[in-house]
Amino acid sequence: MNTPLLDNINSPKDLRELPLEKLPQLAAELREFLLDSVGKTGGHFASNLGVIELTIALHYVYDTPHDHLVWDVGHQSYPHKILTGRKNRMNTIRQYGGLAGFPKRSESEYDDFGVGHSSTSIGAALGMAVADKLSGNTARSVAIIGDGAMTAGQAFEALNCAGDMDANLLVILNDNEMSISPNVGALPKYLASHVLSDMRGVLHELKHQSARVLDRLPSMKEIAEKAENKFKAIAHEGEHIKQSLSLFENFGFDYTGAVDGHDVIQLVELLRELRQRKGAQLLHIITKKGNGYKLAENDPVKYHAIGKTPAAETSGSLKTPVAPPPTYTQVFGKWLCDQAAADSRLVAITPAMREGSGLVEFEQQFPTRYFDVGIAEQHAVTFAAGLACQGAKPVVAIYSTFLQRGYDQLLHDVALQNLPVLFAIDRAGIVGADGPTHAGAYDLSFLRCVPNMVIAAPSDENECRLLLSTCYQLDQPTAVRYPRGSGCGAEISGSLQTVPVGKGVIRKQGEKIAIIGFGSMVQAALTVAETVNATVADMRFVKPLDIDLIVELAQSHDYLVCVEENAQAGGAGSAVLETLAEHGCLKPTLLCAIPDIVTEHGDSAKILDDLGLSAEKLLAKIQAFVK
Amino acid sequence: MNTPLLDNINSPKDLRELPLEKLPQLAAELREFLLDSVGKTGGHFASNLGVIELTIALHYVYDTPHDHLVWDVGHQSYPHKILTGRKNRMNTIRQYGGLAGFPKRSESEYDDFGVGHSSTSIGAALGMAVADKLSGNTARSVAIIGDGAMTAGQAFEALNCAGDMDANLLVILNDNEMSISPNVGALPKYLASHVLSDMRGVLHELKHQSARVLDRLPSMKEIAEKAENKFKAIAHEGEHIKQSLSLFENFGFDYTGAVDGHDVIQLVELLRELRQRKGAQLLHIITKKGNGYKLAENDPVKYHAIGKTPAAETSGSLKTPVAPPPTYTQVFGKWLCDQAAADSRLVAITPAMREGSGLVEFEQQFPTRYFDVGIAEQHAVTFAAGLACQGAKPVVAIYSTFLQRGYDQLLHDVALQNLPVLFAIDRAGIVGADGPTHAGAYDLSFLRCVPNMVIAAPSDENECRLLLSTCYQLDQPTAVRYPRGSGCGAEISGSLQTVPVGKGVIRKQGEKIAIIGFGSMVQAALTVAETVNATVADMRFVKPLDIDLIVELAQSHDYLVCVEENAQAGGAGSAVLETLAEHGCLKPTLLCAIPDIVTEHGDSAKILDDLGLSAEKLLAKIQAFVK
Repeated sequence: MNTPLLDNINSPKDLRELPLEKLPQLAAELREFLLDSVGKTGGHFASNLGVIELTIALHYVYDTPHDHLVWDVGHQSYPHKILTGRKNRMNTIRQYGGLAGFPKRSESEYDDFGVGHSSTSIGAALGMAVADKLSGNTARSVAIIGDGAMTAGQAFEALNCAGDMDANLLVILNDNEMSISPNVGALPKYLASHVLSDMRGVLHELKHQSARVLDRLPSMKEIAEKAENKFKAIAHEGEHIKQSLSLFENFGFDYTGAVDGHDVIQLVELLRELRQRKGAQLLHIITKKGNGYKLAENDPVKYHAIGKTPAAETSGSLKTPVAPPPTYTQVFGKWLCDQAAADSRLVAITPAMREGSGLVEFEQQFPTRYFDVGIAEQHAVTFAAGLACQGAKPVVAIYSTFLQRGYDQLLHDVALQNLPVLFAIDRAGIVGADGPTHAGAYDLSFLRCVPNMVIAAPSDENECRLLLSTCYQLDQPTAVRYPRGSGCGAEISGSLQTVPVGKGVIRKQGEKIAIIGFGSMVQAALTVAETVNATVADMRFVKPLDIDLIVELAQSHDYLVCVEENAQAGGAGSAVLETLAEHGCLKPTLLCAIPDIVTEHGDSAKILDDLGLSAEKLLAKIQAFVK
Repeated sequence: MNTPLLDNINSPKDLRELPLEKLPQLAAELREFLLDSVGKTGGHFASNLGVIELTIALHYVYDTPHDHLVWDVGHQSYPHKILTGRKNRMNTIRQYGGLAGFPKRSESEYDDFGVGHSSTSIGAALGMAVADKLSGNTARSVAIIGDGAMTAGQAFEALNCAGDMDANLLVILNDNEMSISPNVGALPKYLASHVLSDMRGVLHELKHQSARVLDRLPSMKEIAEKAENKFKAIAHEGEHIKQSLSLFENFGFDYTGAVDGHDVIQLVELLRELRQRKGAQLLHIITKKGNGYKLAENDPVKYHAIGKTPAAETSGSLKTPVAPPPTYTQVFGKWLCDQAAADSRLVAITPAMREGSGLVEFEQQFPTRYFDVGIAEQHAVTFAAGLACQGAKPVVAIYSTFLQRGYDQLLHDVALQNLPVLFAIDRAGIVGADGPTHAGAYDLSFLRCVPNMVIAAPSDENECRLLLSTCYQLDQPTAVRYPRGSGCGAEISGSLQTVPVGKGVIRKQGEKIAIIGFGSMVQAALTVAETVNATVADMRFVKPLDIDLIVELAQSHDYLVCVEENAQAGGAGSAVLETLAEHGCLKPTLLCAIPDIVTEHGDSAKILDDLGLSAEKLLAKIQAFVK
């Protein structure tokens, strides 16, 4: 790899010493470096290739880290990391102990705001701009947001405020024509003020000409025709004004664009001008996801994030990977299609996570019953509530971490009204490389206090199907939470059989120690139980809890151990303690759960071990507990 | 009161039998009835006076309850309740056992969707429309939303979807010019397509005239001038296009308006036409909050909701009420001003709750450090995170129930980054007349699992000040949660003194029974303790818990009792159980908290008693527990 310019850039300061005309070459080198490094390590791909020129231009023009760059979502921050002193650690990205896959304040002074969830950048950058203004700091704030992220209500809320606050803020809309919603994909294609100034130009001309009308009679018809043609063009463009004026000028932003996001020289020139302007500015750039890498350009969804690939293959075709065992996501996707075939009332809703949530096949089979609402978790949940009111049976497929965005709606619109909406909660527990911003560590705690909810946690793939079928049949709000990736490889029934609600099952009968297991941790509990001859219960339901079983286990054992992949505070073990207290059972109880810390990113097994939740660590804890 | 038409209307069916020309009289009668009934019972006022004609027109044209009316927020649903068979129970509104202050599905088949929180109506009505379409039901769905509610991201998310879904949905924008954000207050004043067709008309005229140009020379200058004036007008109106096209046509809605929302005849005619139209329709009406009641018209913020007023006074001036003891809201407001005077870094943020959150004086004293972001809880929190990044010290003043809307942002943007944002959580616990949609019953459960959080719960007004001062000084996310209304009337220090973090205090030394008290329930605990000679601890902090104190209390007493005004599941008592388990303390423990049910509306003391949380009920529970 020949990257002579990039080799000498260890910080944005080095970048700023390059002459402007060298930037295209730097972009080419950065692209080559990125293809090589992501090819080796895996990670987000297409989005990073799309912002190479933008990233160079931003660090070239803005005085980082004095000025603030806030990357929305942050999966496009690899070029930013490479240019800000982390080039030599890119081979560790998303790995345990390595660089995070997203900007992270504790990782670098250049990472102004930690991200991961979508659509926070405008509000965060606005906060920085306002704070700087109050303290007399001259720093500039820039939010870089994709068109997909503009569908979330939070982005709208921030736009609505920003234009009103007299803060110096630049929002860069990175329009890669990959947006989820066609409406938002139809964003500004024309600068509206051009249209108005065009119109004013014609007026000026008309007035000027009319003054000379008596002198120049023959030209009058021409003028009228010319004006008409111009006006026709304006009327035609008027259709586009609808798109153009809406989201930005309406909120008090000055709009600039749309410009080619891969022309680094033009970007630098524009940013130099924008950096001087006061007030809320919006720069609309058009980029191509995966730019410069043919495979990613052609299929940016597939190459949104990739696993490690042999470096040699990045310029050719990628090998089709050997089919892994089915993931929980796939188990859900298959169940959904089967259940939908059996019940025409079933409808499925996703907030822009068709692939991630396993809905591709459902959409193909049941297109009229499939609803992708865009990155809009709040709406996804209330929309489901409305559907349920009229007799549909909605299944909301959502990641645990993103359900946090629909929490109020789950409580207020679904649960208080006791509507039958099934939440299929994917990525519950530790999520691995995506790290703490995506951790599904809290759902049991924030759902357990919600009235009318039933909460199930399957211990393997077949249980997942059983519990989905069971919860689907209930006439109330339900949630089934399952982890990322594959389970233990249990054989999966093809039926839509159900199990009794709120009843657990004994998986192994032992003595003295009873392990009360929830969801994914039941497997580790079974492993540990072999060594200490413990009883293992698979509770199946976190709510309602199987009180009889808990009381019975407490009475027939000396020690209780609760295991779960959720925060300890308020989690499933906490529910067991509440039950024991209520029934006057005084028994030594050990809670094994995610401790009250911000977890790290990296290999899930390693993280779980760090948190004391591997079979090995569990065993040690239990042995110490009963000693 | 003379209301001959209204007297005979017991359902919308009766209403529909009236001839159209009688509707203005019915509106007048309904207005009189409303003034009389709300004057007697208290409740939301101005908003209901504003929608009398709209409500009549809707039930006159739409086939309710087959068709669906979804009232956003729902505080404007009194005329709807009066017309749908609940007229004779309006004297019970918001009272225990009486009508709810908001639409409630279990109360009437005419209440299609339970509301209370803002901005859910479009999504819910869309869900109904889509479900009906799928099942072949011909019912129509209507969402009625105010301009203020349009600032919330969720409304935007729903609009973004609705235009795309080919569902028959009517959104009525009730523009009462009372919006919180000036931007949204500048909503459509002109129908954009009018502007474009105006322009086309001018073109046509120009062309026509130009053909005759040689025949009619003298008029040419006039034409040009006329054209110019017309174009100038268009250019001027162009400024309004920005407002007009944005939110609605951009999302695929057909826009109609703006029309007078107090002209009931015109509304009926328009709705008859709109009810036939396919696709997403938006009707923009202009109304006046408090229409017909002079005091409310002149000061609709003050009369947004009123307490009971003597009927005799509704037509004159209202008496200034005797100053009650300071509420927690007022204690917070005073502290905020004092703290702000002492620390120039302090900034305060409210999502459209200046009055309710006690920020009126702060805004007056520190206008540049006051930020009302509109009904936009998500943005409020992330904006605060951005402010904190740049050294400001943000205080987010928010109701417990509305913090549910900013939960993801609190977790993802504030807590994971360990930013010093103080959440001043008002209306924590039971809220009284507003009922279950506004219950602040869950915050301890959903906050306790959040890493880095400090959570405090003051037991009286002075404690509130102490804990606010204490949490404000910490360099991490903090929350102080306090109840609605007044406390026990404790004398309040004027200092900004702090207390040790995570340390409780013994308020009364007793024996055998130790009551571990949190927040508002400490007072009831002290009352009870007189009878049973219990020790009472005021824990002050829910997180971090005072572990030493809990272990000590467990060791020195036979029974533990935890009391709190939060859901039992995952609440403060649950935290005590986790601590006891971790430290091997086996002690009978009674949890007294809000049970796992949807609470009712009505007098707070009565509700608390129903839930077993009055001093009397606590005593009975404790006596049964230790027997």
